[in-house]
Amino acid sequence: MSERIRVAVLGAAGRMGSTVVRAVQEAPDLELVATLDAGDDVGALADSGVQVAVDFTVPSATEANVLALVDAGIHAVVGTTGWTDESLGRVRSRLEARPGAGVLIAPNFALGAVLAMTFASRAARYFDSVEVIELHHPDKVDAPSGTARHTAAGIAAARAAAGVGPSPDATTSALDGARGADVDGVRVHSVRLRGLVAHEEILLGNPGEMLTLRHDSFDRVSFMPGVLLGIREVGARPGLTVGLEHFLDLG
Amino acid sequence: MSERIRVAVLGAAGRMGSTVVRAVQEAPDLELVATLDAGDDVGALADSGVQVAVDFTVPSATEANVLALVDAGIHAVVGTTGWTDESLGRVRSRLEARPGAGVLIAPNFALGAVLAMTFASRAARYFDSVEVIELHHPDKVDAPSGTARHTAAGIAAARAAAGVGPSPDATTSALDGARGADVDGVRVHSVRLRGLVAHEEILLGNPGEMLTLRHDSFDRVSFMPGVLLGIREVGARPGLTVGLEHFLDLG
Amino acid sequence: MSERIRVAVLGAAGRMGSTVVRAVQEAPDLELVATLDAGDDVGALADSGVQVAVDFTVPSATEANVLALVDAGIHAVVGTTGWTDESLGRVRSRLEARPGAGVLIAPNFALGAVLAMTFASRAARYFDSVEVIELHHPDKVDAPSGTARHTAAGIAAARAAAGVGPSPDATTSALDGARGADVDGVRVHSVRLRGLVAHEEILLGNPGEMLTLRHDSFDRVSFMPGVLLGIREVGARPGLTVGLEHFLDLG
Amino acid sequence: MSERIRVAVLGAAGRMGSTVVRAVQEAPDLELVATLDAGDDVGALADSGVQVAVDFTVPSATEANVLALVDAGIHAVVGTTGWTDESLGRVRSRLEARPGAGVLIAPNFALGAVLAMTFASRAARYFDSVEVIELHHPDKVDAPSGTARHTAAGIAAARAAAGVGPSPDATTSALDGARGADVDGVRVHSVRLRGLVAHEEILLGNPGEMLTLRHDSFDRVSFMPGVLLGIREVGARPGLTVGLEHFLDLG
Repeated sequence: MSERIRVAVLGAAGRMGSTVVRAVQEAPDLELVATLDAGDDVGALADSGVQVAVDFTVPSATEANVLALVDAGIHAVVGTTGWTDESLGRVRSRLEARPGAGVLIAPNFALGAVLAMTFASRAARYFDSVEVIELHHPDKVDAPSGTARHTAAGIAAARAAAGVGPSPDATTSALDGARGADVDGVRVHSVRLRGLVAHEEILLGNPGEMLTLRHDSFDRVSFMPGVLLGIREVGARPGLTVGLEHFLDLG
Repeated sequence: MSERIRVAVLGAAGRMGSTVVRAVQEAPDLELVATLDAGDDVGALADSGVQVAVDFTVPSATEANVLALVDAGIHAVVGTTGWTDESLGRVRSRLEARPGAGVLIAPNFALGAVLAMTFASRAARYFDSVEVIELHHPDKVDAPSGTARHTAAGIAAARAAAGVGPSPDATTSALDGARGADVDGVRVHSVRLRGLVAHEEILLGNPGEMLTLRHDSFDRVSFMPGVLLGIREVGARPGLTVGLEHFLDLG
Repeated sequence: MSERIRVAVLGAAGRMGSTVVRAVQEAPDLELVATLDAGDDVGALADSGVQVAVDFTVPSATEANVLALVDAGIHAVVGTTGWTDESLGRVRSRLEARPGAGVLIAPNFALGAVLAMTFASRAARYFDSVEVIELHHPDKVDAPSGTARHTAAGIAAARAAAGVGPSPDATTSALDGARGADVDGVRVHSVRLRGLVAHEEILLGNPGEMLTLRHDSFDRVSFMPGVLLGIREVGARPGLTVGLEHFLDLG
Repeated sequence: MSERIRVAVLGAAGRMGSTVVRAVQEAPDLELVATLDAGDDVGALADSGVQVAVDFTVPSATEANVLALVDAGIHAVVGTTGWTDESLGRVRSRLEARPGAGVLIAPNFALGAVLAMTFASRAARYFDSVEVIELHHPDKVDAPSGTARHTAAGIAAARAAAGVGPSPDATTSALDGARGADVDGVRVHSVRLRGLVAHEEILLGNPGEMLTLRHDSFDRVSFMPGVLLGIREVGARPGLTVGLEHFLDLG
């Protein structure tokens, strides 16, 4: 039997962190060897033989954590948000001295969401029309969701690269807001409904046909298969990778 | 075998009218005895023994047609738009002299659309949240569609009558238009997509559950079952009826 | 301010019972005055001034509980399964001596599920075709679900009562099982998928149109609005009522 | 301005063929220079300077047509069904003498259907559960549809190649047919409903999430964008290609 991968979890007391802790404990090919919270010394992990560390901490701490992990020669799987081009650049620089180390930073670990976004971008150039609907619980404060904006921006970029024009729209008389928000020329509609969690639907239309890509997220455990895949693959992918889709074999 | 109902079609050369002509010809319990177009004399129908006349003409002609039909003692099934409270009042007045005559005026003869609207109004008071999405081909000039506005207005009225407050919404930061149009306090989102025809979805949410009512109209023949039902029932429903839902037995 | 309704919960330690306890505690117009579990004396509730008791116990206990509640003049709201025509008959007999007491026994308290079933039965006679798809988590042992069987049976009965024939089906060559199960002549398809909870979709088709009624149950809290509605209404509905739909005002 | 591609249509009088004729006539970068029907001489097309021929004829004629086109140095885009491994082998042999000629044979030219199938195969390995629902008009004689069987077979092959086990299913008590047909271990459900045309839904489930890929075909014109793409690309893809997906740039 092959050796189990030795894993540490940073931010282990948080909502996401504690879910990761359970998922690692239940995975037969992984061994949980350390859990850290605010104030704990990341550098000390090297002595425990940790191979991969998962970071679901806070924006103010994650960059320092990742830099320390790189220095310690520990691969990192990062779900914390707040990364900028500058902070990503500093991780890339630090990795130059550690060519074997891998860092995966992903804004979304739900495989279904990542696949829906990736497929939408790839399909977008082949359809006359594309629109996005996102549906969330009514306690959400921003609209559209970050995922939907990111999806629409990816669609817009793919269509621009392929030289595809805007979706046709003959609307001349509309109530304010009826046609949704405009994200890089792609219409995005935000539904807020008690009972929902997080859902996204991408609609692509051609004469006589429609392709729909829909992702439903019912529970935060939906992130775990993506996190486990990251843990298993990051050691074989040196350097910085941004986005789980690059770890997927999508043909 | 029972007698067949003797039917005339007004506006027989139009898109809807010609579809009605075919549907009447194919129905074993109906007999097509006259087809009229612009300029033909409605009053002469009485001599042909016409029992029910279907009017899919134009807003400028339909009221005069209906008044002439009432005078002639012919029941009327009307799909032409453009009716106002005043023109409906004139039909009611004229019917007073003809207590046996029935007139059905319906903005929508698609059974599925009528049922979706009716069910939405009845269900609306039992849910925390309600929103409407309508989806049409991109050559449509108005947004939201008349059907969606009518649906939202019916939902709003039903919730107000039951003392239900507005759908919860914590949005504090939104792109313009993301949250859709506001129709009497109900959010309505309009999607325009090549390949679509006419579609409406009503979403109702409570803690832990969602009820979805969706109507897809793929083709204008979808109006025919409702028109035939109108023809068969109008003789037994004297007076003016506005809306096909009143001819349905919905418990 | 009006008096709060005094409520007891039987089976308070169970999964459903404990959820009911919380919901009653959070409702401003209800007062939780007693919780009972196996072995506790139902008869003693009368002394606490309990007006309504909610029973989510077990099939072997529920009938005796309800009979004791009726004897004590306490209204009952019952979500326990296992009722037969005979046991319902015994409740009806006992109620004869207590004309003011109300008993609501409901197989399903999710408002959305009850509405989907009711609307499906009412709409079924107006469409050529009707089929049912139910979707559940893959740990479910029976297929189709009880709710889907109940829905299909209601649809079949409504179509039979209206003299509507079977849904058209030209299939002459099929793989075993492709066309689903046959429940009183209505096709029912059972999907089992990791990540799902409990979902049902009723599809109704006419030439050129489709009406879809879908219910998604994401969490057991979805039963609470129906249970609370039962508690509030049961006092005004003397006698035995089977099915939450009879407490809804559906026009 | 670049030269227009000179196109011939074989089977021009058929339902699909006549639709292709119109689509080619309306495309500004294509020139329709010949239409052929049963009995016409394919070999003579070379004299008209035809560059690409589209074949929507009948299974008994298509192979001879394609071989004649290859001999004449004309690229072929073929939507006729009935191809076997043997007939495909004969096309490959003939192409050896004409290394510049391209032949595209595709069972399905609807871009949305091809993308749904391709994406389903690529995503299938990342999910615990996968099932397929196909929905068609009730005049269809076979169930499941050929597209759905093909989709399920592709999913099954992709999961087998990645070493993924069967979808979980705890069903121990089921009505006959409830769980659908078994296609290589993937469950397929066939709905037949008046009003529908051709629709397919692939459901992929993981703990806490679902990814849905749905294709709706409303009208035969949905095949045209794929046929036009084939005409434009086949000249740059020498040899035999089976399946439109190989002409798409899916990253």
